[in-house]
Amino acid sequence: MFNKTKQTKRIRKTDYPPTDYGRIFHPKAIAILGVSADENGVGFGTGMLRAIKMMGYEGKIYPVNPKGGMLSGLEIYRRVEDIPGPVDFAVIAVNARYVPESLEACLKIGVAGAEILSSGFSELGTEEGKELEQRIQHIAAQGIRVVGPNCFGIYCPASGLTLLPGPDLSRQTGPVAFVAQSGGMSIDFAHAGKWLGVRFSKMISFGNGADLREAELLRYLSDDPETRVISMYIEGIKDGERFFSELKAAASKKPLIVYKGGLSAAGARSVASHTASMGGSRVIWQSILRQAGAVQVNDTEEMAQANLAFAMLPPKAFRGISIVGGGGAIGVTACDTAETYGIEIPALPPDLQERIGSVLPKPGSSAINPIDVANPFVGPQALKEVLLGAAGDERIELQIIVSLLFHYKGLARAFGIPIAEVTPYKELTQCVRDVVDQTGKPVIAVLPNMTRGMESMDITELIALTRQEYLSHGIPVFDELHDAIRAIAHINNYYGGRKHEK
Amino acid sequence: MFNKTKQTKRIRKTDYPPTDYGRIFHPKAIAILGVSADENGVGFGTGMLRAIKMMGYEGKIYPVNPKGGMLSGLEIYRRVEDIPGPVDFAVIAVNARYVPESLEACLKIGVAGAEILSSGFSELGTEEGKELEQRIQHIAAQGIRVVGPNCFGIYCPASGLTLLPGPDLSRQTGPVAFVAQSGGMSIDFAHAGKWLGVRFSKMISFGNGADLREAELLRYLSDDPETRVISMYIEGIKDGERFFSELKAAASKKPLIVYKGGLSAAGARSVASHTASMGGSRVIWQSILRQAGAVQVNDTEEMAQANLAFAMLPPKAFRGISIVGGGGAIGVTACDTAETYGIEIPALPPDLQERIGSVLPKPGSSAINPIDVANPFVGPQALKEVLLGAAGDERIELQIIVSLLFHYKGLARAFGIPIAEVTPYKELTQCVRDVVDQTGKPVIAVLPNMTRGMESMDITELIALTRQEYLSHGIPVFDELHDAIRAIAHINNYYGGRKHEK
Repeated sequence: MFNKTKQTKRIRKTDYPPTDYGRIFHPKAIAILGVSADENGVGFGTGMLRAIKMMGYEGKIYPVNPKGGMLSGLEIYRRVEDIPGPVDFAVIAVNARYVPESLEACLKIGVAGAEILSSGFSELGTEEGKELEQRIQHIAAQGIRVVGPNCFGIYCPASGLTLLPGPDLSRQTGPVAFVAQSGGMSIDFAHAGKWLGVRFSKMISFGNGADLREAELLRYLSDDPETRVISMYIEGIKDGERFFSELKAAASKKPLIVYKGGLSAAGARSVASHTASMGGSRVIWQSILRQAGAVQVNDTEEMAQANLAFAMLPPKAFRGISIVGGGGAIGVTACDTAETYGIEIPALPPDLQERIGSVLPKPGSSAINPIDVANPFVGPQALKEVLLGAAGDERIELQIIVSLLFHYKGLARAFGIPIAEVTPYKELTQCVRDVVDQTGKPVIAVLPNMTRGMESMDITELIALTRQEYLSHGIPVFDELHDAIRAIAHINNYYGGRKHEK
Repeated sequence: MFNKTKQTKRIRKTDYPPTDYGRIFHPKAIAILGVSADENGVGFGTGMLRAIKMMGYEGKIYPVNPKGGMLSGLEIYRRVEDIPGPVDFAVIAVNARYVPESLEACLKIGVAGAEILSSGFSELGTEEGKELEQRIQHIAAQGIRVVGPNCFGIYCPASGLTLLPGPDLSRQTGPVAFVAQSGGMSIDFAHAGKWLGVRFSKMISFGNGADLREAELLRYLSDDPETRVISMYIEGIKDGERFFSELKAAASKKPLIVYKGGLSAAGARSVASHTASMGGSRVIWQSILRQAGAVQVNDTEEMAQANLAFAMLPPKAFRGISIVGGGGAIGVTACDTAETYGIEIPALPPDLQERIGSVLPKPGSSAINPIDVANPFVGPQALKEVLLGAAGDERIELQIIVSLLFHYKGLARAFGIPIAEVTPYKELTQCVRDVVDQTGKPVIAVLPNMTRGMESMDITELIALTRQEYLSHGIPVFDELHDAIRAIAHINNYYGGRKHEK
């Protein structure tokens, strides 16, 4: 996956320590310190060993426990020094007080980096915890990069590294990098990304951030050819000035999406007990992020949706859009939402209205824009004609199609066949793909699910299937129209607001 | 379900026409004008006949079609005049140009009210359409109340009346009334309410609103003993002054939730083609609704969630809340969101922190508030202790428990048994119910679903099951913490902001 030359190239001459990120994210051999000595262990070390194996990591794994023995078919080494080959990366999950000596042992055998999953450091607020963390910093400074402590580690789909406790994350690699102190936030986003269609280059949960932290990771990711979109969840930062300059530099190169948590008084309190760092005022952060040219989001869903949009849509602003859906209220809502976000829904010229109107049922439909197709059973070919028609207006730069698939339940019931068989979702997704190819204008699909009870699991499944089908055609899918429009607004703010490097 | 005396009482002496709402919402006999003459029909009339039958409506149904014959085991009458018994309510689904004479026939045989599902009236913007609608108004004024035209009709779970095309709406009755021009919005909300746990007293989709409209329906619902919460989706209104006075009067009696659509320029355009009425400026509407004491919501989800909260929580403001969940980032997010909405998350006093801390895993947990239980497998009994502990702080008036149930998938995989069997969701929901009973303080459950792909349908199902279980215990459930906090904020604004009638 990488060779010595490439690795050397990645070592930058900066004020940051030289770091072999290639060996850290794509290790050929991993040591796991702090596995249990038998199969019944439930600790982080054993959990991570199982998770990495389930992810299908193809390199060497060396479990370490002073008791020795075997685990999951692998020999357990009593000491790091006993490991019979080179080790690129270490997972450290021993009790906090043994972490410094474990890290030191890794340093001595030439490990490039380690993730420390153990907690019990500065986040406790105790003198002992702080001192242990300082010792980690001293060892790291001697030549081993540390992610953590008190973190969920690194997820890298290309190599098979995974977060705690994620044995089931996607192995598909993609353009989005994510950096966060919070392990919970990271694993949540990794899971959500899997079904949403957000694919990751790498994800780093750095917990207390004793060594590698936000600013340095931003610098790395802004130069990382595997990363096209950077996103971060920030609770607190350590060196404000440096962080701001990295933020600005990164945002000028790639879309940078930032979710800043802990902006309230109680939130700051929660941050302090969570990852031992300081929050900051809402106004200051808004201003910092705006100045830096970063995209600010306010919750996990908004963050995930913005990442999806940046990852799957062409890199440009979309000023005018069309919206196609059944049921007039959708159109009304769409317009209101779009206006809030400064996106135009231009009324189509009469000739296009006529062309579109000719394939729609009457009365009840409207071809103005939003285009109300009047009933949810208008077929894929007709919808294709509608989309092709609307794309004829040069002011339309992106189209949204809203499908209320749950209405097919009525047909399924009437015909006595499963809803997935009565709904032309494969044809629909193919037609939408054809429209994108023919017009060169992106389409976003919106699949609201109004019926999510136990008696409607077939509908929920149909919608999941349709989403999967759309994603396989490269079409992003949102649950709600509002979410789609907000995500477009983020793109417009990023690409429309300032100059970026090419 | 009602008797003559009660009906007579409901006829009010006002400037509105006398209306027998009892016969309209709880009809003992319904005529359906415009069914097909055989079983293969797909028109609105035939659809409504099937839907009402599937809903289990227990009164008499008289289908009408000039051709006569039989449909779904019922005799079809050639003319309304041929119907052999009294008719309380009529469904009219004939072609627009035959609607006036059909309505007149209903008037002649003493029908109390009719819903006109047909479209082709003022919403077309044509002279012919407007004239037809005026004729409807003239006939209505002679003594038959009309819902529509161009509408989906009335849904009343108690009697079995249902919206187009809703054969599968809930028959459970409840406190929420909903009024909208938009049929699509109505059927969507009826479906969403079913799984969300919002139960309806009655729902009226009045389309073009030729006769019965927003102001008069508000008056009726504000006095309706079956309705405790009123919600409306408004596109445009006809008589602003009267509407405002009814809005104010209704909001002083019951929580009144208003979603005003068509606030943007394009939205107003969309409204015009959708239900032939006028929109209005954003600022004016905000001010009108605030002055009236109504709760303003900005999309369908927010509306549904606000209704759920008003329907299931005690009628009072909740100034201080506790939040219990696993994963620190949840706490951080919670505090930020709460601050935005003016809700306090007070730090618990040391004694309660100690009591709560004693049942939580260490390190990683925090008992301050938000209470971070550190891992998603903390058992129901421990969570019960945590909730009982936090309720000991008198500033806490409501509690939120966030459960990341999808993490149980890991356990399910490890043990090789289905996730619904490994997750103690029944015990959890029972424990939460016990806490509410013992403390007298309401609890809201939040069940985020981070894993909604095809390979995680078991998790989606587990969450639907858990929601169902919570709802059966009277505990409202939200998908996201943000949604729950926003809904509480609406309650606080309503009950905290002004004086209401007892």
